[in-house]
Amino acid sequence: MTDPRLTPLSASLPDTVPFVGPETQERRMGHAFTARLGANESVFGPSPRAVDAMQRAAQDAWMYGDPEAQELRHAIAAHHGVDPGHIRVGEGIDGLLGLLVRLTVGSGDWVVTSEGGYPTFDFHVTGFGGRIEHVPYDGDRVDAMALVERAAWSGAKLVYIANPDNPMGGVHDAATIQAMVEALPDGALLVLDEAYVEFAPEADLPRIDPADGRVIRLRTFSKAHGLAGARVGYAIGPKPLIAAFDRVRNHFGLNRMAQAGALAALLDADHLAHVVTQVTRARARIAAIAHDNGLVALPSATNFVAIDCGSDGAFAKRVVTALAERGVFVRMPGVAPLNRCIRVTAGREADLDVFAQALPPALETARTAP
Amino acid sequence: MTDPRLTPLSASLPDTVPFVGPETQERRMGHAFTARLGANESVFGPSPRAVDAMQRAAQDAWMYGDPEAQELRHAIAAHHGVDPGHIRVGEGIDGLLGLLVRLTVGSGDWVVTSEGGYPTFDFHVTGFGGRIEHVPYDGDRVDAMALVERAAWSGAKLVYIANPDNPMGGVHDAATIQAMVEALPDGALLVLDEAYVEFAPEADLPRIDPADGRVIRLRTFSKAHGLAGARVGYAIGPKPLIAAFDRVRNHFGLNRMAQAGALAALLDADHLAHVVTQVTRARARIAAIAHDNGLVALPSATNFVAIDCGSDGAFAKRVVTALAERGVFVRMPGVAPLNRCIRVTAGREADLDVFAQALPPALETARTAP
Repeated sequence: MTDPRLTPLSASLPDTVPFVGPETQERRMGHAFTARLGANESVFGPSPRAVDAMQRAAQDAWMYGDPEAQELRHAIAAHHGVDPGHIRVGEGIDGLLGLLVRLTVGSGDWVVTSEGGYPTFDFHVTGFGGRIEHVPYDGDRVDAMALVERAAWSGAKLVYIANPDNPMGGVHDAATIQAMVEALPDGALLVLDEAYVEFAPEADLPRIDPADGRVIRLRTFSKAHGLAGARVGYAIGPKPLIAAFDRVRNHFGLNRMAQAGALAALLDADHLAHVVTQVTRARARIAAIAHDNGLVALPSATNFVAIDCGSDGAFAKRVVTALAERGVFVRMPGVAPLNRCIRVTAGREADLDVFAQALPPALETARTAP
Repeated sequence: MTDPRLTPLSASLPDTVPFVGPETQERRMGHAFTARLGANESVFGPSPRAVDAMQRAAQDAWMYGDPEAQELRHAIAAHHGVDPGHIRVGEGIDGLLGLLVRLTVGSGDWVVTSEGGYPTFDFHVTGFGGRIEHVPYDGDRVDAMALVERAAWSGAKLVYIANPDNPMGGVHDAATIQAMVEALPDGALLVLDEAYVEFAPEADLPRIDPADGRVIRLRTFSKAHGLAGARVGYAIGPKPLIAAFDRVRNHFGLNRMAQAGALAALLDADHLAHVVTQVTRARARIAAIAHDNGLVALPSATNFVAIDCGSDGAFAKRVVTALAERGVFVRMPGVAPLNRCIRVTAGREADLDVFAQALPPALETARTAP
């Protein structure tokens, strides 16, 4: 039954959600995961300084957080060497994407993204009545230039690309992203989701003028900074667009502890470097585990590795389910041909021991299942 | 300059924000407030158990919070003796109001609220292209039945009332709210904002069936529970409407520490009772301070007191500014005739000492200013 007061748009929206949380799966299964490797969280944890800052801020939780997140916003601006007017802090990239879509996508407007790309972007576009053109991957890579070409045909308002890519893990070099920007049709905005950028080679990072009206970049404290539970992300973009968020955002929406934690995390470069080192090691080990099982790991510039299970989506899904039964939480891409893969987050040695033990019997189960 | 890619609606929105935070004022003034009595935060703080729960959860901040907030949602449901399907947890009442307006108010749809009522509701309605009918207060009380009558004329989708009332502090008895529900025209939804309900006399609380399709109630952990910085609120309402939030909400938006803190706060009834007692005392003292200065305090069923400064909005604004210069943060209603008042949050003895000291010279300044 649908509430009769919903707008026609709201009434038309599907009941599906972008992601089912691991807790929901745990409740369904009746047991907890022993290795949480499905949401690309940083199992290596946040900076101890961030934990300390959040714990101290908890005592002041009776106060609303600063609605301008001034201290954090200025620190981010300094970190990037840009004016604070180019920075907008929000409740994770998910929250910022929702606001960006709301600001720019009206009913019937087109956006372009990759087939099998980030479902939450699609969720927001659909939620605001936009229409989505899905461009197939070029093999296991986002077809960067095809996204831009399709935008010219459809007159799309937004062109979304995650670089490094989720769910496949690859990265385009700086020249490719810069070529996208140059080829972008008038009236379109490139939404460059850089959630995993800290794990990519420095040389691959595109140089983008924050004042460039053609691009908005999105960053997060949820991945390399290990603060997924805090919900803090930020956008870097042209000032008029960044300012427009004030017209629609939940001004007091940013948790006070989250602001303190993100600031401390940003300033702890050593911890970040430590995490990146650990992730590099974990990627190698995941690749080795895949190889030991006769599978192929795709190259990754993120904190996860897509493993080609060598069959189709139905098979990979059985692998995911069989791993879950053995206490390992992983996810997989949603559409063919990407969905022949499973996606495994970089874990600690102990997490990957669990994965290494669970994978052979999970594959066996998947192969013998009906 | 406006970004050219904004939707016509976004481009038309004003740049004003619902509230300026005290931190922004402090930065402008160049000094900090010594008494923070303007945002109706609970100066008495959250439950120590909530602080402890948040501090423990901070160590797990690398994990996303449960997107279903299952534990908290079930605890809230048990607290109210209702099925969890009637409960939706969100990022404060502000966040929930935004989602509710998005779900129900399309471009050109009407809503009804009070003239001088909660600005953030108006902000959301305007932000989604809705139109607002403002009903004047009946003296210093919300004109409850006039709201409903106006909804019948305009075919409004939503009728908003805060009970107890913000910014004036009064409360309508249960019979009045129940009469509103009975008189509500078909197709309208009563949005009953109960942010301050814990401070009101128990006898005044209306009995509302959570399955009643005519009403959605909003509660928060920001006021009596002292967790404004955590950003947690919840809605109680009919299941189809509660379920519809899943179509548009930021599923992973609820901070992990916030979920833990709210749960612990909900279970600490002793702390809540302690806070209510302190607030009752503070209200009496604020009234006495007003009286000592020849001013009249309005009756309050909230954690703040509106003080009638005996003149007009310009005068009250000078009082607010003069108090700020003396380190006291208070706010005032936005429209006449309510804006002859200043609104003072219930504070600790020390906070109210500062207020008591600052008020006479602030009034003096206001009286002699140009």
